[in-house]
Amino acid sequence: MEDSLPIAMHREWKGKIETKVKVPLENQYDMALAYTPGVAEPCLEIKDDPSLSYAFTARWNTVAVITNGTAVLGLGDIGPVAGMPVMEGKAALFKAFGNVDAVPLCINSKDPETVIRTVELLEGSFGGVNLEDISAPACFRIEEELKKRCSIPIFHDDQHGTATVVLAALKNALKLSKKKIQKLRIVINGCGAAGIAIAKLLIKAGASDIIMCDRKGIVTEESSGDNEYKLEIARATNPRKVKGKLADALRKADVFIGVSAANILSADDVARMNEKPIIFAMANPIPEILPDIARRAGAFIVGTGRSDYPNQINNVLAFPGIFRGVFDAGACDINDGMLLAAADAIASCVSGDELDCENIVPQAFDPGVTEAVARAVAKAAAETGAIRGGAVCGS
Amino acid sequence: MEDSLPIAMHREWKGKIETKVKVPLENQYDMALAYTPGVAEPCLEIKDDPSLSYAFTARWNTVAVITNGTAVLGLGDIGPVAGMPVMEGKAALFKAFGNVDAVPLCINSKDPETVIRTVELLEGSFGGVNLEDISAPACFRIEEELKKRCSIPIFHDDQHGTATVVLAALKNALKLSKKKIQKLRIVINGCGAAGIAIAKLLIKAGASDIIMCDRKGIVTEESSGDNEYKLEIARATNPRKVKGKLADALRKADVFIGVSAANILSADDVARMNEKPIIFAMANPIPEILPDIARRAGAFIVGTGRSDYPNQINNVLAFPGIFRGVFDAGACDINDGMLLAAADAIASCVSGDELDCENIVPQAFDPGVTEAVARAVAKAAAETGAIRGGAVCGS
Repeated sequence: MEDSLPIAMHREWKGKIETKVKVPLENQYDMALAYTPGVAEPCLEIKDDPSLSYAFTARWNTVAVITNGTAVLGLGDIGPVAGMPVMEGKAALFKAFGNVDAVPLCINSKDPETVIRTVELLEGSFGGVNLEDISAPACFRIEEELKKRCSIPIFHDDQHGTATVVLAALKNALKLSKKKIQKLRIVINGCGAAGIAIAKLLIKAGASDIIMCDRKGIVTEESSGDNEYKLEIARATNPRKVKGKLADALRKADVFIGVSAANILSADDVARMNEKPIIFAMANPIPEILPDIARRAGAFIVGTGRSDYPNQINNVLAFPGIFRGVFDAGACDINDGMLLAAADAIASCVSGDELDCENIVPQAFDPGVTEAVARAVAKAAAETGAIRGGAVCGS
Repeated sequence: MEDSLPIAMHREWKGKIETKVKVPLENQYDMALAYTPGVAEPCLEIKDDPSLSYAFTARWNTVAVITNGTAVLGLGDIGPVAGMPVMEGKAALFKAFGNVDAVPLCINSKDPETVIRTVELLEGSFGGVNLEDISAPACFRIEEELKKRCSIPIFHDDQHGTATVVLAALKNALKLSKKKIQKLRIVINGCGAAGIAIAKLLIKAGASDIIMCDRKGIVTEESSGDNEYKLEIARATNPRKVKGKLADALRKADVFIGVSAANILSADDVARMNEKPIIFAMANPIPEILPDIARRAGAFIVGTGRSDYPNQINNVLAFPGIFRGVFDAGACDINDGMLLAAADAIASCVSGDELDCENIVPQAFDPGVTEAVARAVAKAAAETGAIRGGAVCGS
């Protein structure tokens, strides 16, 4: 059988990134500066003041892209080595979009504590960590614990990158539908990493009426079982105590956000919603509802995760600029204030006449998006004291 | 105080390597191939056949350069982060000399088992591991155990890179002194990582009369204490059961190999040796004896670790070519046969009229060295069955 195009290209590339040498290494003189004996001096200065590692090595601009392969794309638990083509691709996007140097790594363990410990032991090698494609709920514990133990920014893109771009898209959608986030009824279908992070960030942005759904229907304290993260978000949402299935949640809802599975939203569901309903159907590759069907059923705005429909809600709008801003500012954390600023910056890249129901977010290759996000994130980092040596940073 | 030149340059460089993107990422079409949805296919193929990670990712050409900072250069235990300027420099040399992609990593632990476990967990990210600047005896256990647990080549350059270049230099020195390795009396001063590895490789190459010395004098079974690695090499050396200090070991010795400390070899020591004595005084930055003093005392050939004297015994002659050969061959191990072949290849780069007492090894920037070493190593890997899928490789 002949190779498909993606297979043929991956075979030809033999990897998406390589090492580039930044220093001259043409002769003995060069080598004596960059290696022995010259290198001894910066080593000793870093020994006395570890913060100088940001001045003398690539740490200031280097993010580790780390997976354990338990939730790769929509493919599920395919293992660490099989996840590496995605990690390499992500590393390439970091560099191409954000001029961020990136190291793809896979950890051969499903045990959260082992993943945490491994990353913690490697902390000194990097300026930040981008966790990727790690299954929920392990991903929550891993991120939470690493944030406590490490002094470098820890970011789980499947959570916060997604949440940031969703918020950006929602902000622009609300400008068009003339609704306010505080008054919205929002339904999020999918209560994993992305769904929970979206809910939390929307609450930070002012949302007060969110209902979470999973495969079993509306998520409540009772339905959360021993998943402490579901329980936490169940407590923070559903103020009207609605019970039942997704269809019950959707009655008079203003917004549907799907991070779930193909075709689970019907035309009838859309018809059940409030006027000017906003639908972000982000399941990949097949969305929760096809845009044409959603619009015929009355949807005001439809976004998906796909590049071949309007309004692609794509993490690449966020993560390169977020880490560019983090590294430019010397940030020690990525906090909600920085994410809210990033969402504002993304939203502001589409304005005036450009902003319409088929163009609520910039496209991946629109110029200026990364720069706008980076500026906003760096500013928010400084304002919140989340920079090395700042008020909220450890030593 | 003004910065020294090495500090000023490290500050300007802000790191010695960066990420280079190898794939086109100019538009949505490119991104759909290198990232989602295209990347899903190679992921699934690797899931079914993990060996395809060498075809579809950069693994085939990527070495991790790993330290825990416990024995950095001659600076001692300066910590993992302080070791990173060296690891980055090493990564740059791997790329510049061998076109090998390299990832510098530091592990924040002095516990051998923790270092072993961390590297083992990351194995799937790399095609090989170069251990660097890890103190003895921990380095022996770490390498030994990783070779058992991992299916990728594990190489401790401070041991085997050094041993390979020493053997190459010795082979050419013997051509000039018309002596045979089998009949030599060899004294190695320094019984750490380098000293022990040199002794073992010289034995593999035919040496039969080696005496090891450390700070306390000649290393014997009695003097080795609970250091199992010293004990092992004590048993394998000193066939004439010589006792005493370095000076006693040197009586009628043909070769002195120093991997120890500045100025510990005197002119009287050299005068005590056999005719045409060969002195490799590799302590850095100040050798065990200065070449001028050694020659006036009768040394036939003097080599050091420094570029400003003749006969620089420099690991850069070995490690880039060794890993180039390993990756070209798809090797699963770096065995003694491959090291012996590498030493031969290095020695063969200086021949005929070029070979004289002040030119027994090629210089770092001589063209063709890496290629010669790579060819020899790849051939030896194939001949010894040490290639993926070969007789001696695990699954």
